[in-house]
Amino acid sequence: MSDLHLLSPRGFRAGAVKAGIKASGNLDVAMLVCDTPAAAAGMFTTNKVFAAPVKIGRTHIAKGALRGIVVNAGNANACTGKQGEKDAIGMCRIAASQVGCTAREILPSSTGVIGHLLPMEKIEAGIKGACADLGESVEHATRFGDAIMTTDTRRKLAVETLKIGKDTVTIAGVCKGAGMIGPKLGPPHATMLAYLTTDAQVSPPALRKLFAPAVTRSFNSVIVDDHQSTNDTAVILASGASNGKINTMANAKKFLDALTHVCQFLAYQIAADGEGATKVVRIEVVNAKSEKDANTIARAIANSPLVKCAMNGNDPNWGRIVSAAGMTNAAFIPEKSTLTLQKTVVYRKGKPLPFDAGLVSNSLAVPEVVARLDCGIGKASATVWTCDLSKEYVSINADYHT
Amino acid sequence: MSDLHLLSPRGFRAGAVKAGIKASGNLDVAMLVCDTPAAAAGMFTTNKVFAAPVKIGRTHIAKGALRGIVVNAGNANACTGKQGEKDAIGMCRIAASQVGCTAREILPSSTGVIGHLLPMEKIEAGIKGACADLGESVEHATRFGDAIMTTDTRRKLAVETLKIGKDTVTIAGVCKGAGMIGPKLGPPHATMLAYLTTDAQVSPPALRKLFAPAVTRSFNSVIVDDHQSTNDTAVILASGASNGKINTMANAKKFLDALTHVCQFLAYQIAADGEGATKVVRIEVVNAKSEKDANTIARAIANSPLVKCAMNGNDPNWGRIVSAAGMTNAAFIPEKSTLTLQKTVVYRKGKPLPFDAGLVSNSLAVPEVVARLDCGIGKASATVWTCDLSKEYVSINADYHT
Repeated sequence: MSDLHLLSPRGFRAGAVKAGIKASGNLDVAMLVCDTPAAAAGMFTTNKVFAAPVKIGRTHIAKGALRGIVVNAGNANACTGKQGEKDAIGMCRIAASQVGCTAREILPSSTGVIGHLLPMEKIEAGIKGACADLGESVEHATRFGDAIMTTDTRRKLAVETLKIGKDTVTIAGVCKGAGMIGPKLGPPHATMLAYLTTDAQVSPPALRKLFAPAVTRSFNSVIVDDHQSTNDTAVILASGASNGKINTMANAKKFLDALTHVCQFLAYQIAADGEGATKVVRIEVVNAKSEKDANTIARAIANSPLVKCAMNGNDPNWGRIVSAAGMTNAAFIPEKSTLTLQKTVVYRKGKPLPFDAGLVSNSLAVPEVVARLDCGIGKASATVWTCDLSKEYVSINADYHT
Repeated sequence: MSDLHLLSPRGFRAGAVKAGIKASGNLDVAMLVCDTPAAAAGMFTTNKVFAAPVKIGRTHIAKGALRGIVVNAGNANACTGKQGEKDAIGMCRIAASQVGCTAREILPSSTGVIGHLLPMEKIEAGIKGACADLGESVEHATRFGDAIMTTDTRRKLAVETLKIGKDTVTIAGVCKGAGMIGPKLGPPHATMLAYLTTDAQVSPPALRKLFAPAVTRSFNSVIVDDHQSTNDTAVILASGASNGKINTMANAKKFLDALTHVCQFLAYQIAADGEGATKVVRIEVVNAKSEKDANTIARAIANSPLVKCAMNGNDPNWGRIVSAAGMTNAAFIPEKSTLTLQKTVVYRKGKPLPFDAGLVSNSLAVPEVVARLDCGIGKASATVWTCDLSKEYVSINADYHT
């Protein structure tokens, strides 16, 4: 597995250059291209304040076929009005002229500072450079992944292979999000960008149908600060270059499982690299009345700054978790609920259980903590990944100026 | 005004003692008593995980008549099962035997650590001591206010007088909440407790009707960390000892305005004393489609850790505010919206405006910051008070153990 990467699925090439958009001077404009028209599915921020590339991207992906993705980091092209939309279309035009396709076959993506127009001269030179750089080596895949990073401290990659018929299908993905800011990079944006590639043969409607639940159970279940970005984007391209056809229920199930794993592993890496995070906290809510309720409760717990601070301090303060669970409109009956921190049951059916606070605190001083809340009133469950809230998070987001 | 206090409305006495519930050894059991049956209205946490005194208090206040309130700090009597309910009733019984009324005429209230049974011997001695201490001086009022504090760093008091007919009616209140924790006090709980007194003549149904909107526009509009407590309680007692009768629409309006002011000033003090807070941030949302929408948007902004960190760092990062406004299901159209930070318009109708970042940053370095978002699509408005998110908040909630 270790030698697999974003370009391992057959039919894809990528390229990236330093175009001078990021203040750091790092790679910041990148292209991902499919040699043939790829089946495509995408999901975007539902924030009413959405960036120009999100608006344009939604229309370009509507027909389910794309030749490529053009991305820049360092400038989100958000809150930029009509000119921002023209610039997003401009990015597609420039990329299309290099790739040899129509502008509508290119999806634009941006991440970075809000409220500034794109420097289109640098962008144009960057896109041309990235297209000249296109290749399918591991180095090309790595450069693509690096170019999309903003406040991230590390690359985020996931790959899985599966047998479909006699052929091996590969699903790969890279993402960025929720990382730490360098002192002069501009304001931090927890924008989540994820790009997935696969060589499976799958129709656009089927791909769309499979991508939605995979995203729900992965990217939509990771929380750093619950501030929904103007630019969040997840896109999958399927080249169809393998002989693996997703054309049966069994195949679709197998593909969905692998796709969900890839997305979940990417989402997990976002939580682990959350701004200031010292650990991942997995909130498992089980035996809730409905999946919606389970999700609502898990998110309320994951969003509580008191819970997140307790996790930062390895404090087994279960009252904060239980009271967070009771705050929502989801069905929740304390007398039927049981809470387990790591391996220790601390609260059972409305009552506190005695436990050794020192031992449980020690059990929380690890890179991944699991808090499991059994609601005891149904069969639905949900998992949300989050991170702790540290002084470093405040530093990152308070001490460096716009 | 400066000499007015909780017991300025005629007909009330208070007392407090050190009963050994708080680890600090400070005042921790208190009584507020009305000489005659008072009209009473109360609002409680809507958390499904509510404490025993909330459960008992709801039934005791149901008929709208009370003789007194018994409070302890240092132990929330929450998540304590059936025994907790017995203990809450026990508190009322002990208080009633001293006051000379029925247990149902006493409202119990607790705040402090979750998940521990009340030490009933200490509680009993404390209630008896507090009843022996009853008096109507400013010292008695101050002691009552001090006894209910947990993580607060300062007392919170508000008083207003108004003419009703020929008589002067006084409305007074004390509250606690959202303060800083001392190193060994136990876990912090942002429980909000507010007790109000008035000598107006007002029927229980009228008092209930007037109290609800006052609470909505004050306590329900203050956010420190949006973690709803198991014990939140606001209660008003009206002794009727003045000649001011609330019996006309005009009188009711006048009383409601004064009551709202008292509650808002108390709520403001909670935000100002929020854990780790260095400033109050007033979020004003105007010209929204509905009051519900205005509230939803204001709360989303007030809850964003990114907005709160920016306020901590005096960073005019308006993109965080505008994108928080777009995250909810409330109607919001960026192209119609305008954001003003203090006196500076930074965003108008979907587009950024140029501004001097240094000057605007300086304007944010004050004890109270106003962020005003004009949605431009209706006539409804809402105001929410919050505070910034500081490293100190993380210290308070991560570094001290349960």
